[in-house]
Amino acid sequence: MITTTDPRTGASAAIDIQESTAADVAAATAGAAGAAKFLATAGREFRAGLLERICTEIESARAQLVDAGLAETGLTEVRLNGELSRSIFQFGLFAQAIREGSYLEASIDHAGETPLGPQPDVRRMLIPIGPVAVFGASNFPFAFSVLGGDVASALAAGCPVVVKAHPSHPLVSRLSFEALQRAALALDAPEGTIGIVYGTEPGRLLVRDPAIRAVGFTGSLGAAKALTAEIAQRPDPIPFFGELSSINPLIVTAAAAEARTAEIATGIFGSYTGSAGQLCTKPGIVFVPATPAGDELTDEIVRQTQAAGAGVLLNSRIRSSFSDIQQRLEDAGGRLLARGVDDDGDGFSVAPVMLETTAEETSAELAEECFGPMLVVARYGDLDQVTAAISRIPASLTATVHAEQSEDETVGRLFTELEPYAGRLVYNGYPTGVRVSWGQHHGGPWPATNTQHTSVGVTAIRRWLRPLAWQGAPEAVLPPELRDDYGQIPRRIDGMLVLPS
Amino acid sequence: MITTTDPRTGASAAIDIQESTAADVAAATAGAAGAAKFLATAGREFRAGLLERICTEIESARAQLVDAGLAETGLTEVRLNGELSRSIFQFGLFAQAIREGSYLEASIDHAGETPLGPQPDVRRMLIPIGPVAVFGASNFPFAFSVLGGDVASALAAGCPVVVKAHPSHPLVSRLSFEALQRAALALDAPEGTIGIVYGTEPGRLLVRDPAIRAVGFTGSLGAAKALTAEIAQRPDPIPFFGELSSINPLIVTAAAAEARTAEIATGIFGSYTGSAGQLCTKPGIVFVPATPAGDELTDEIVRQTQAAGAGVLLNSRIRSSFSDIQQRLEDAGGRLLARGVDDDGDGFSVAPVMLETTAEETSAELAEECFGPMLVVARYGDLDQVTAAISRIPASLTATVHAEQSEDETVGRLFTELEPYAGRLVYNGYPTGVRVSWGQHHGGPWPATNTQHTSVGVTAIRRWLRPLAWQGAPEAVLPPELRDDYGQIPRRIDGMLVLPS
Repeated sequence: MITTTDPRTGASAAIDIQESTAADVAAATAGAAGAAKFLATAGREFRAGLLERICTEIESARAQLVDAGLAETGLTEVRLNGELSRSIFQFGLFAQAIREGSYLEASIDHAGETPLGPQPDVRRMLIPIGPVAVFGASNFPFAFSVLGGDVASALAAGCPVVVKAHPSHPLVSRLSFEALQRAALALDAPEGTIGIVYGTEPGRLLVRDPAIRAVGFTGSLGAAKALTAEIAQRPDPIPFFGELSSINPLIVTAAAAEARTAEIATGIFGSYTGSAGQLCTKPGIVFVPATPAGDELTDEIVRQTQAAGAGVLLNSRIRSSFSDIQQRLEDAGGRLLARGVDDDGDGFSVAPVMLETTAEETSAELAEECFGPMLVVARYGDLDQVTAAISRIPASLTATVHAEQSEDETVGRLFTELEPYAGRLVYNGYPTGVRVSWGQHHGGPWPATNTQHTSVGVTAIRRWLRPLAWQGAPEAVLPPELRDDYGQIPRRIDGMLVLPS
Repeated sequence: MITTTDPRTGASAAIDIQESTAADVAAATAGAAGAAKFLATAGREFRAGLLERICTEIESARAQLVDAGLAETGLTEVRLNGELSRSIFQFGLFAQAIREGSYLEASIDHAGETPLGPQPDVRRMLIPIGPVAVFGASNFPFAFSVLGGDVASALAAGCPVVVKAHPSHPLVSRLSFEALQRAALALDAPEGTIGIVYGTEPGRLLVRDPAIRAVGFTGSLGAAKALTAEIAQRPDPIPFFGELSSINPLIVTAAAAEARTAEIATGIFGSYTGSAGQLCTKPGIVFVPATPAGDELTDEIVRQTQAAGAGVLLNSRIRSSFSDIQQRLEDAGGRLLARGVDDDGDGFSVAPVMLETTAEETSAELAEECFGPMLVVARYGDLDQVTAAISRIPASLTATVHAEQSEDETVGRLFTELEPYAGRLVYNGYPTGVRVSWGQHHGGPWPATNTQHTSVGVTAIRRWLRPLAWQGAPEAVLPPELRDDYGQIPRRIDGMLVLPS
């Protein structure tokens, strides 16, 4: 029995969605397998049109989607509306990207004499990997869920998708799925283009299903390990693209603390408490100088924290983890510095919590990710203490430096030191807020992700593609993009990159 | 104690190379870690120069390298000389590729208004992943070993390399390593730029070493599983790029069998017996029509096989596997059709063996890869039997079709059916012989490889790179390639691909 829960009240209600059976999973993956050839060969223009139709269908369903989100997630209407616009933007951006065509990495090496003798004609292009399973996240019911970037990029690549619905928002998931399905049907794409399953066991079956050729996942390290263990049992292990865990260190130089004390304090407060701290890019640990300005900056975050009301967490598990993690951080030596104003409702709300340590005391235990409004402030004497601390804690999606204009040399050195530990280096900004664009990278070394790929931005499409080479093939059997006279996309011809004429 | 063995005689001799100790491994990886920052920041032109210097050093050592290869591998002088030229060509091609710069995927999204509001400046580029461990193959003592494509592509990417020497050619490995080292020293690159370890246990230590950030592997499925199990034990699992196993089906249409009977028979014979069948792209199973021309074609391969002398295998393990696999193929229903002329020496030589089955009887067991001159001929009634058979056997690096010009429609259909089971589709050619070029793909679905990447051709470099994004960073701290005024490489600027001016 599937239930929906209002995190503001903790009240659950049964809904008319059933946990998927093994037969449901098999039907979804069989449908996806059936749709794969259609999607792969329907052509880029068809798929761009499908993505644009999805934008229209999402926009038409905006009111229902946001209402369902309000009931299931505890997020605000402004945030949900913004997130839905972001989803729509993502589908549209991938439509642009597949029309542009660079993502195919089309390459033609004509037959001919080489320093190694005569060589055959070889042409290479990326092709869809096949049906993809997507496990969405709880914290972005739209942008990292059924309407999220994994689904958008997989469909753009030409891969049918079966989504495993997140149990924190089943109604949103179903409404989202229906919007996708309407778009597919409107364009006469096969029904199996998009599928959905509900429940933990169905998720396990999904990643073991022979038809599934790759998995996209945003969630916890524990869930990822369970799924990758399943995949390892397959006779044919498949790629698993996981976005897993991130502490997102933020460093304030002494000069920046001095020059922008209140501004940075307010920025940090907003970044760690926004969306109740439930962002994979939330700064979990900030390094503040042990100077008078650093004291003042810390005090200002304390004041804002103490004045803050409780934020609603997405589900009871995240709520109970919050207290557990606070306990572990205190056990690891974190000193409680401030706590906001708890509310006394029955929901999953929690007041922000701020702890203190020093850079020298900073350990992996003190850098445990908390999916909620919790912040560790680590005070430091010099920046070498900070970079040493960062080398002791797990790698992240992001690392941030606040510095003054005169400190470019320091920033350069810090960025170089931070490089091995992050996928995005942020300067005088905040890591929360991930621009969806061509050049974005939302990834990073383990445990941020387990791959060298991104889950946000246009290059996220590479995860759902594999190269195929054709040797000596007649023009007629080549995909259009690899025929000599096709001039509509950037291609590499005999080693030279050639733009469309 | 390390020994070298002459496969022609089976005679082993002790040599002055010791199995690496744990301390040796630690020294090699520490050296690599120390060299990583230098290589990453020395710039593309420096690395291109290093690769070109490597070409020179290999050429200077050609006579010694080929002599050592003759003594250790049983391969012919012509083959070894050709392979060494291929190694040199590969280093040179990667020098070109890093000068050209597309591989960086440099992308700049300027700050500005977007449909989602104002967005920060975000720039993305691929950076070296860090020190790489390379496990070379036995069958290409140059082109897939210490002087191979994995080493060339990793150095090109800016990653120091520690090679685990293959036990079948320790002297070649050491001479190769010394050539690389001379090049590094000549250009004042750190000594840790290139390292080498000898022995199985050192290989295990290597992939668990915290300094190693990725692994390149060419070898057996069994060895790959052992290494990936080690990697799974790391606190930070790292990417493993394995080229593992391939049966390389080849299909002859009825029309082709009719039109080019003797030519195709001779081609198949050469392709399955060349280099004593020890090529990952060797056709292990060929589908021949059950027609009079198909009979004749089969008979011709039989005649050539029966007349053929024994080929020398690389080591005793490959030699004993050969007999074991023949036995398993016969147990699985393969009927012995022909055997060449055995020699009676003490070495690891073996005469070619040819078995017969039908497409309908073809099973995964009958498609076991044999690293040696063994061929299964599967006779078929119609092409649907063939594609059904291919769906029952493991995927491969390649799949080949021989057809007539009038059969483009048939070829198109076959290629579409073969696509999910191969990384390269060959038309009227033979899969052995892998062109080193920009558009090559040497990879494929499991068990051909475990990834969506290639180990031959320019795009092999992608395995040793990871994306990094910079947000709002001052020009001075950006890598040169991401500064606004850098115009020397192709870049994507605000979504638009721009070529160098």
